[in-house]
Amino acid sequence: MIDSAGIWQDIVAIRERGPLVHNITNFVVMDFTANALLALGASPVMAHAPQEVAEMAALAGAIVVNMGTLDERWIESMFAALAAARQHNKPVVFDPVGAGATAYRTETAQRLLHAGGISIVRGNASEIAALAGAGGRTKGVDSLDQSLHVADAAANLLTSCAAVVISGAQDVVVGRRERCILNNGCALMTRVTGMGCTATALTGAFLAVQPDPVRAGAHAMAVMGIAGEMAGLQSGGPGSLRVHFLDALHNLDESILASSLRVD
Amino acid sequence: MIDSAGIWQDIVAIRERGPLVHNITNFVVMDFTANALLALGASPVMAHAPQEVAEMAALAGAIVVNMGTLDERWIESMFAALAAARQHNKPVVFDPVGAGATAYRTETAQRLLHAGGISIVRGNASEIAALAGAGGRTKGVDSLDQSLHVADAAANLLTSCAAVVISGAQDVVVGRRERCILNNGCALMTRVTGMGCTATALTGAFLAVQPDPVRAGAHAMAVMGIAGEMAGLQSGGPGSLRVHFLDALHNLDESILASSLRVD
Amino acid sequence: MIDSAGIWQDIVAIRERGPLVHNITNFVVMDFTANALLALGASPVMAHAPQEVAEMAALAGAIVVNMGTLDERWIESMFAALAAARQHNKPVVFDPVGAGATAYRTETAQRLLHAGGISIVRGNASEIAALAGAGGRTKGVDSLDQSLHVADAAANLLTSCAAVVISGAQDVVVGRRERCILNNGCALMTRVTGMGCTATALTGAFLAVQPDPVRAGAHAMAVMGIAGEMAGLQSGGPGSLRVHFLDALHNLDESILASSLRVD
Repeated sequence: MIDSAGIWQDIVAIRERGPLVHNITNFVVMDFTANALLALGASPVMAHAPQEVAEMAALAGAIVVNMGTLDERWIESMFAALAAARQHNKPVVFDPVGAGATAYRTETAQRLLHAGGISIVRGNASEIAALAGAGGRTKGVDSLDQSLHVADAAANLLTSCAAVVISGAQDVVVGRRERCILNNGCALMTRVTGMGCTATALTGAFLAVQPDPVRAGAHAMAVMGIAGEMAGLQSGGPGSLRVHFLDALHNLDESILASSLRVD
Repeated sequence: MIDSAGIWQDIVAIRERGPLVHNITNFVVMDFTANALLALGASPVMAHAPQEVAEMAALAGAIVVNMGTLDERWIESMFAALAAARQHNKPVVFDPVGAGATAYRTETAQRLLHAGGISIVRGNASEIAALAGAGGRTKGVDSLDQSLHVADAAANLLTSCAAVVISGAQDVVVGRRERCILNNGCALMTRVTGMGCTATALTGAFLAVQPDPVRAGAHAMAVMGIAGEMAGLQSGGPGSLRVHFLDALHNLDESILASSLRVD
Repeated sequence: MIDSAGIWQDIVAIRERGPLVHNITNFVVMDFTANALLALGASPVMAHAPQEVAEMAALAGAIVVNMGTLDERWIESMFAALAAARQHNKPVVFDPVGAGATAYRTETAQRLLHAGGISIVRGNASEIAALAGAGGRTKGVDSLDQSLHVADAAANLLTSCAAVVISGAQDVVVGRRERCILNNGCALMTRVTGMGCTATALTGAFLAVQPDPVRAGAHAMAVMGIAGEMAGLQSGGPGSLRVHFLDALHNLDESILASSLRVD
């Protein structure tokens, strides 16, 4: 189902149309995710004031809701964005950063998900497990077995969204009828802050051009992993990885995708 | 009117005096604009609490007001900074980020401008058109014709400020009696977030040492464009462009300016 | 007292345990300090909502309180974090950014310090002087004489904390019974925003594994200076320095520490 030709088609569409991606995201990653969206070819905007969230969301091709540095005011903006998304039929990707770490995060993530309007949820295994009520914090190695176990638990989230992406050393994309596993990436990516949040932001860019949420999620994760691999080849540490990662997003082409994609 | 010797004189003054530039700016670009100000030789400070905005503004050589991630609390801080600037006779540069995109932004930009105390407004063509009430969102190619058209419309802003800078592939600086067009820069700069906001921040540094707002604005845009060109020569994408751009700001010298400046 | 073997032991512990470092810090440096913590081997989290600060602090190995872009809401979160730290016996490092610049900052810094629970205060000479009530803003050259003078004044802070770090071209670490001076670093570090805040954040990582606050502070400053020197050797300006600094943190090893450390 996922092949490099389909990914390339979406990238071409993003570069040609430059879709506006409206981000309500956290303070730590705003800079990096905006740069990643620009490097891919999309047009990022960050706007959170209740007075303009609905108007901005209506202009956007997709909306990114990320609760990384949440507080009451930003949560209010997130709900306003979801309401606007439902009204204007805009796709939303949601990143439940830190769900499972504190009760406030777990409960906020569940309230946002159940408000309706979210197409894709993307998180790591412990965040998705917490959101799915799978109990207990996942700990230790970030293994494929663990992700697949969480993918089973995440099935109950698919009543509230169309796809769940569980990212890790291998990424698992779960739809109502299908699943795929993506094997690209490099270990050094875990030493750069906001790589997960960037995966979510790029998912927003793909959602703006790709109507199938499972494909949009898988295409974004493939691009993350392939750009990360390209960057890893020329980086001596996490500082240079981040720089080369943005360059790689900008320089992705059809032949790199075809030769690099590893999907099950 | 604008020549490399005049730009160099200002850069030397910035490096010698290290003027404090007080920024009330958006979350996305705080890091990058602070680094650009430091690379140029200025001393950035970010402070927004109503309890200290006036005291900090009084210490500053110039004030930067940027409404990129505006909300009611930050708007309150912006008005407080403008009041302090008027009281202490400090120059202010204002960046109406996203004016024209939502009513909230357009109205806030107009209210800030009309409060008084702003020396320079810097934005792209669509932002300046919206602020000038030139009607309709500008779309599509960012052409010199469009910028010059907006420059005509921006004349009515010059009752509220001393200069308007319309940035784009070519930058137009409009004063009450003169105009100049700057032709430096490179296309990859549009793929790095916050380049416009950084132009505004550097304008603040120039305003701290250069009493003529038209010159301050033109010198800042020339430095942006020349540092961007230098960086573009050695960059394989937007990630490395951003890194080299900061290096170039730090390494600018008189001969680079003399050989690179392209001004009409 | 401070030697490279002891520093290396702490780095190994940080890399093995990946301690959670809970940051309540400023908007400008969140990205850079999170990346520096990851590059060193720690696990950063940024969380400020009053609803979760105590729960997050309880999970952390250490807490970083940095008042760089303070306002009333964030100050409330800082006090909540200090209360949780006292309750759960977690070490706290405090960065009084800009103390001495405005009354609001000086008073807030003093209130936070006197609330109790802070292990280490790290600032530059003028911030520490202001906090110690040493009167007058320190100006001009950042000299060792000045730092040692401030170190004397800072003795009265040691009733409220266990160690004070005064950073500058040379860093002075002051405990109740001992003092040490660290001589690593490079001048270009002063042209990168958030280097001081990053020193504070890394101090948090060391506090999570090293029970002696004087050692924790000195080890962090040594690592900052040595990574800065390594980065300086290969950097053409502040943009590349920042990139190489993160790479250097990731690549530090026992032999680099042994050959580079300069401590009195």
